[in-house]
Amino acid sequence: MALSLQDRNNAVKHMINPRSIAIIGASADFSKVNGRPLKHLLEKGYAGRIFPVNPKYTDIAGLTCYESIHTLPEAVDLAIVAVPARDVIASIEALGQRGVHSAVIFSSGFGEMGPEGKAQEQELAERAHAAGVVLCGPNCLGFVNAFDNIYATFSQYADGDTGAGPIAFVTQSGAFGTAIAALARQRGLGLGYFINTGNQVDLTFSELMLAVIDDPRIRVAAGYLEGLNDGAALVRLAERCHELGKPLVLTKVGRKASGMRAASSHTGAMAVEDVVFDAVIRQYGVLRARNEEQMLDMLEALSQDRVTSGNGLGIITQSGGAGVMMADRAEEVSLSVPELAQTTQIQLDEVMPSFGAAGNPVDVTGQFVAHPELLSKSVVAVMADPNIHVGIIWLQLMTAHVDKLVRIFSEIKAQTDKPFFVCWVAAPIEAVKRLNDLGIVVFGAGERAVEAVSALVKFNAFQKNKPKLKALPSTSSEEISKDLIDGVQQTVQASQWLSTAGIPMAPVALASSAEEAVAHWLAAQGPVALKIESPDIIHKTEIGGVLLNLNDETAVRNGYQTLMHRATSALPEAKLNGVLVQTMSKGHIELVIGVQRDPVFGIIVMVGLGGILVEVLKDVVFRRAPFDVDEGMQMLGELRMGSLLDGVRGQPGVDRKAIARMLADLSVWAHKMRPVLLELDLNPVLVGNNGPVAVDCVMVLRDER
Amino acid sequence: MALSLQDRNNAVKHMINPRSIAIIGASADFSKVNGRPLKHLLEKGYAGRIFPVNPKYTDIAGLTCYESIHTLPEAVDLAIVAVPARDVIASIEALGQRGVHSAVIFSSGFGEMGPEGKAQEQELAERAHAAGVVLCGPNCLGFVNAFDNIYATFSQYADGDTGAGPIAFVTQSGAFGTAIAALARQRGLGLGYFINTGNQVDLTFSELMLAVIDDPRIRVAAGYLEGLNDGAALVRLAERCHELGKPLVLTKVGRKASGMRAASSHTGAMAVEDVVFDAVIRQYGVLRARNEEQMLDMLEALSQDRVTSGNGLGIITQSGGAGVMMADRAEEVSLSVPELAQTTQIQLDEVMPSFGAAGNPVDVTGQFVAHPELLSKSVVAVMADPNIHVGIIWLQLMTAHVDKLVRIFSEIKAQTDKPFFVCWVAAPIEAVKRLNDLGIVVFGAGERAVEAVSALVKFNAFQKNKPKLKALPSTSSEEISKDLIDGVQQTVQASQWLSTAGIPMAPVALASSAEEAVAHWLAAQGPVALKIESPDIIHKTEIGGVLLNLNDETAVRNGYQTLMHRATSALPEAKLNGVLVQTMSKGHIELVIGVQRDPVFGIIVMVGLGGILVEVLKDVVFRRAPFDVDEGMQMLGELRMGSLLDGVRGQPGVDRKAIARMLADLSVWAHKMRPVLLELDLNPVLVGNNGPVAVDCVMVLRDER
Repeated sequence: MALSLQDRNNAVKHMINPRSIAIIGASADFSKVNGRPLKHLLEKGYAGRIFPVNPKYTDIAGLTCYESIHTLPEAVDLAIVAVPARDVIASIEALGQRGVHSAVIFSSGFGEMGPEGKAQEQELAERAHAAGVVLCGPNCLGFVNAFDNIYATFSQYADGDTGAGPIAFVTQSGAFGTAIAALARQRGLGLGYFINTGNQVDLTFSELMLAVIDDPRIRVAAGYLEGLNDGAALVRLAERCHELGKPLVLTKVGRKASGMRAASSHTGAMAVEDVVFDAVIRQYGVLRARNEEQMLDMLEALSQDRVTSGNGLGIITQSGGAGVMMADRAEEVSLSVPELAQTTQIQLDEVMPSFGAAGNPVDVTGQFVAHPELLSKSVVAVMADPNIHVGIIWLQLMTAHVDKLVRIFSEIKAQTDKPFFVCWVAAPIEAVKRLNDLGIVVFGAGERAVEAVSALVKFNAFQKNKPKLKALPSTSSEEISKDLIDGVQQTVQASQWLSTAGIPMAPVALASSAEEAVAHWLAAQGPVALKIESPDIIHKTEIGGVLLNLNDETAVRNGYQTLMHRATSALPEAKLNGVLVQTMSKGHIELVIGVQRDPVFGIIVMVGLGGILVEVLKDVVFRRAPFDVDEGMQMLGELRMGSLLDGVRGQPGVDRKAIARMLADLSVWAHKMRPVLLELDLNPVLVGNNGPVAVDCVMVLRDER
Repeated sequence: MALSLQDRNNAVKHMINPRSIAIIGASADFSKVNGRPLKHLLEKGYAGRIFPVNPKYTDIAGLTCYESIHTLPEAVDLAIVAVPARDVIASIEALGQRGVHSAVIFSSGFGEMGPEGKAQEQELAERAHAAGVVLCGPNCLGFVNAFDNIYATFSQYADGDTGAGPIAFVTQSGAFGTAIAALARQRGLGLGYFINTGNQVDLTFSELMLAVIDDPRIRVAAGYLEGLNDGAALVRLAERCHELGKPLVLTKVGRKASGMRAASSHTGAMAVEDVVFDAVIRQYGVLRARNEEQMLDMLEALSQDRVTSGNGLGIITQSGGAGVMMADRAEEVSLSVPELAQTTQIQLDEVMPSFGAAGNPVDVTGQFVAHPELLSKSVVAVMADPNIHVGIIWLQLMTAHVDKLVRIFSEIKAQTDKPFFVCWVAAPIEAVKRLNDLGIVVFGAGERAVEAVSALVKFNAFQKNKPKLKALPSTSSEEISKDLIDGVQQTVQASQWLSTAGIPMAPVALASSAEEAVAHWLAAQGPVALKIESPDIIHKTEIGGVLLNLNDETAVRNGYQTLMHRATSALPEAKLNGVLVQTMSKGHIELVIGVQRDPVFGIIVMVGLGGILVEVLKDVVFRRAPFDVDEGMQMLGELRMGSLLDGVRGQPGVDRKAIARMLADLSVWAHKMRPVLLELDLNPVLVGNNGPVAVDCVMVLRDER
């Protein structure tokens, strides 16, 4: 019987921390996939009850082995299913009958095999749902809950020491995930949870992470993704992490996704999935690591327990060059390397050798090799500087001075409560270990240390925004009328909806005759544009369907006829609604604003600088709707050519806030309309001294209610 | 007595491989800076004669210690100078008197101390020159020639095993350089030479590298730079490396050099030093590594002995995600990940598990853990594919299968002669070592492996260009007339010089009266532009000093008066030569072309897309003059907005070759003019259907002959 939401949540909770485990298809050969979980559970000291199930054995390693699922002596909290693919569905149904509500399925031979396997997988999902069994997998390595010695896995990672720690790591890839976990172990980073999602027929990446993120023993969430179906769940996860004050670090491959969105409109065609993913996760405070090494670097910085209150980085080195390299990188990743206060510089001058540099970066020079104590005083002085919020100390080798340096770093830690990191190139292994034991993070390369610090600073800065995410308007789709028609909407109608929502639109009216066109021109009291109006003609200029700056009766009258004629000649089949008469707008900057219904994340708003810039440079920025004016301002700040908004070559700057408000208002409107809105293009939006105004508008609806 | 060039070269040669060494200021305390070289020389088995010099001792470690330089029993090939800064000059003069021609100076207390030290340093340079002593340093760690057990250093690097290998490493930084050397050792990369240049009062980075690069035991040159004075020497080094077929890898810090070039003209202001450095070294085939880790990755790829014949990368992994990540990165670093040939795919289908991916990247999946032999056949098939020129095989952990995998990789190596690399994440140390012993390079992270492969491919591709560098015209400055006047040149004169050199210039004439202006307009037989002509007014438009598109007598006549009046009002002090009358040119694309005399590299040519693009996006590309049309084409290819040249938004494309030819011709002319040319701006250069034409020209000369 299908589970209620509450029962489902309970089942997941018990899956992750089961009091009893059955291993379906258990083997006595501990080197095999179906033998390894039992080996791990026994070796690592799982405290619950274990029930191997396999008709071939009466016992394995001293444990009674059961002939079938039906004969299990209790309804276990978790079943590990390690049987051939063809037997999986029957096993899951038997588990449901036996009252078992969660299973992790190792078996491969499903969706990864192609269409046939995909169908099998679909059936598995349906049958499991009906049987009331929650699934992790199939085709997964299973998971480790290191806190409670749960090793429901055959991953190579479990072969070594898997000391528990504050990191929850969930991975869609078994092989790459195992590699990352092994690298974490090499660094002494403890994974409290290691979970491989496999084919995600039921529990997804986000749900599995949500199941463990509340655990108070977890302080940092890390994920490896290859794809994403349920963007809303990822957003929920990000929001939960934010509430809990726990950072979420994601690595996702597929940055150059060749799959451009299939979309009829010009701007839509640029919404490459990864660009949207990247924008949305940043919007919700998720940190993205570009690869496994950067992820682990970030995890190290985020696992320590100090908080930055700003982005001022103090750099102390024994090499001027290393300092320059780190300062360069800091600038690139939005850290500042501020000048030190006068008092700090005076303190440093007292400490430093005369040829050292008392600026920031501080170079204590080669004298440091003979006098490591140069370090403590300089570092303490720098860390006490009001402009400095976080420090990096760079050194190398110093094999003969490990004791002294460990003591010095320990003293420094006691003398500042700001976070600082050691970057020790070619460090003696012993030194790294001893510093780690003191809670001091050690990196092996300067640029990587800077990148990790930047992640920490970004996380701490984002945490300050706590109320923002919640302050957005609630939405309801009830306001949307029921008699909407799918397809391209009439411009006048679309324009009116948007105007009502506060979006600045150029006034427009539809003329069905030359006389009406003239009347509309008279009403406009100034120059107008004429545009052919047809649901079948989206790119009007391509058929010569736009006439600009008409301001006398003859021109308007002839213009009407010209456009109707051109449209009929070019596209005899097109349904023509007439000709739009639109007041000419002024603006020296051209924007493109678009809305898309993204299959993963829902309504996405895009802004770009128009004309050649959007075409050649693809200078566009995305956000998930809804969002507020501050977020709109950030979008503008992320445009590479954004300084155009501030005026160049003698042109005046424009009001960024007015554009940001337009974006935010549009996002709220689009979010309300999400059950019916498929796509909207405002292209161009002209921005002049009176703010932005959309002069063209293509709105496509498709009712999904 | 100052040395002849030949004697100097000999001195350097003997410095690097001395038959005898004196240690001036030697200490019996082997932990001290002045004690450590002797320790190293003795321990590592230097075969030559060693003469400690220090009045405090009669012998050190069984060697006779000499009271003074004068009492040395022979004119040694190399003196190590480890005395206080104040005694250095006297020591060097004494060495010169004793007939010693080379010295490495450890002593600090020179230029790094500020202006006073700088003066000291200058004196040291002059006295050493007079005394006929070639210097490395001061303020350096010295050097290691590991082939011949020469340890003229106190670097911590020498404390460990410093097995000789095919890499020559020269570093300007002692501390960072030592760290890099130590990291190289950790990877098993052997440094044949480790040289720290220090303050470079005499021998520079490039000279020291030139001194060792011919050594047949060296196959790769690597350098760490913090600054550069003599660009010409670096170019010579790059050319020598190219002749020898040895790659040169450089890491230089200071990418964000805050020091913008001090230059009066607008375009010149953007020539940030690092941008020029980066462009010039790439022009000469030098590989730039962004940091120490990337440098070492590149050195690993370049130290193996196979050559790529194209940029097709084959990727074989046990994780689909890792494959995607590497393919993404490959695209970013100009590698292709081509489709495999039909025959290859058929072969793969035979080998691969049914759910693996036989495309490129090839995913042999988790089945590989149980069946590592899946690998050999897939890799051999991929490497045999005609589209594949280099391979990367990605795997992780596999601790239980090291023997089998080492055997498999060894077999693969025997079955292909194309280079391939193993990326083994969290590899057992033993596996890396054993593969290295087989000459197989192992990386620990996928993206880094791809970046290293890209360096190898770039190097091999550049090597094919051998004749190009030499095919450029020889230059002479004799053609330049002697009576040139420093400063801004008259436009008509400058324009004529450039026209003569084949540079397309808009026809222009100077009018000293309204009548003359009208006459020039009549001669032009079409619309003209009028521009005020004054050496004191470079940015004419800022004072309204340009009138466009005049095409009747009154307009031209009035225009002349207007411009003279505006100029006099705006800048009463300015010397006015008159008004330029210039034929209007057509072109829908605007370029900026500039020439600068760079203090490091000499004449640099710049091209950028004009208007807002050059101002906001800084979309400009640099090259050192002279260069050929192919290089000009490459410049255009590097413009981020370069696709504008091919036509967007209905505009026609333009002739790239014609622009490239203009750039090349300009570079040759500017190179000839280098003794007198300070700066040239062609802004804008209009490009239309008839090719490019410069419509404004500011030329500044300063005679350096």
